[in-house]
Amino acid sequence: MQKPDYTLYVCTDRHLMSSPTIEESVEKAIEGGAGIIQLREKDVSSRSFYDTAASVHRITMAHGIPLIINDRADIALAIGAEGVHVGQEDLPASVLRRMMPEGTIIGVSASTVEEAIRAEADGADYLGVGAMNPTATKADAENVTIGTLKEIRRAVRIPIVIIGGINMGTIPSYKGLGVDGIAVVSAVVAAPDPAEAARKLRSLWLA
Amino acid sequence: MQKPDYTLYVCTDRHLMSSPTIEESVEKAIEGGAGIIQLREKDVSSRSFYDTAASVHRITMAHGIPLIINDRADIALAIGAEGVHVGQEDLPASVLRRMMPEGTIIGVSASTVEEAIRAEADGADYLGVGAMNPTATKADAENVTIGTLKEIRRAVRIPIVIIGGINMGTIPSYKGLGVDGIAVVSAVVAAPDPAEAARKLRSLWLA
Repeated sequence: MQKPDYTLYVCTDRHLMSSPTIEESVEKAIEGGAGIIQLREKDVSSRSFYDTAASVHRITMAHGIPLIINDRADIALAIGAEGVHVGQEDLPASVLRRMMPEGTIIGVSASTVEEAIRAEADGADYLGVGAMNPTATKADAENVTIGTLKEIRRAVRIPIVIIGGINMGTIPSYKGLGVDGIAVVSAVVAAPDPAEAARKLRSLWLA
Repeated sequence: MQKPDYTLYVCTDRHLMSSPTIEESVEKAIEGGAGIIQLREKDVSSRSFYDTAASVHRITMAHGIPLIINDRADIALAIGAEGVHVGQEDLPASVLRRMMPEGTIIGVSASTVEEAIRAEADGADYLGVGAMNPTATKADAENVTIGTLKEIRRAVRIPIVIIGGINMGTIPSYKGLGVDGIAVVSAVVAAPDPAEAARKLRSLWLA
């Protein structure tokens, strides 16, 4: 697989999605131009997470798009996912780098310059910086200012995707800052037409 | 590390333990004769599970005793634990056998003959058979009869530990059935003196 295209990074959300299944949600996101998919599952058994991940992976593989598993490196290993994404309360990137196969994409959530620098030093391949805005998914997260985002961009060399309330209204604020892509959850998966929503977000970001 | 001694298999429980820390709980269980320790953590972040596992592993390694991680194969890999234990709702043993390092101890919970046979075929090293009795830890589990336990013993060759309400009162019922050891949670970790409780359970089982 080539280098991931971070332009439009779509995270799943079983509880927010407009589609009847995660698989359909992912199909539509890819149809609309998602270049990378993150599967995020909470409060499900490991077996259920594994089954869903295997099923979603068949879809992403058919489109040649990397699948990133949120938090659970064991699920990523079990299905042979292309990557794993961790937050500050998950396994450290340095530990993942040691235990995952060579070439595994490791992403880390960062909301401060210190977290960003540490993640890059630990071997992260990209950063998810946010939450940029308050969202339904992470209502309690502290927001990252544009000033901090600029500082993070200056502090690290790895790709940065921004996350948290990224939508048609907020996208213009984040252009020209050296950000590699936008990561979205509800703006795509909760949209009545996720493919159309993805296309519009991608166009606006690239415009 | 040699073959595990399944005689007294102690599972941790942060919510039931009488000790102020998991580490102290494990120290006392080992002092009382536990030959194998399972770390079970639910509803904690991956980072917190990892930190606890690393800390408990230092203790078990100092005593030359295998540490088994419940469910989370990624935590087991991250700390280099000797094994992982999975239930029927966790990753299948066949998948774990492929993704874990050679020599990893893989345990599977089984409550029926079918589950036991499949686990052995999938490459499990031992079975946790139960729940033998209703317990506070697994109040909703269906109980395994002595008849089923005997059938499972005839059906598989791998070691069997029984779990679920195994205590000084119930131990005599399970002797002479070809069971390799007893797995306990509260009978040790919730006891006022876990080391003394472990010693007594082990002695009664071996008597």
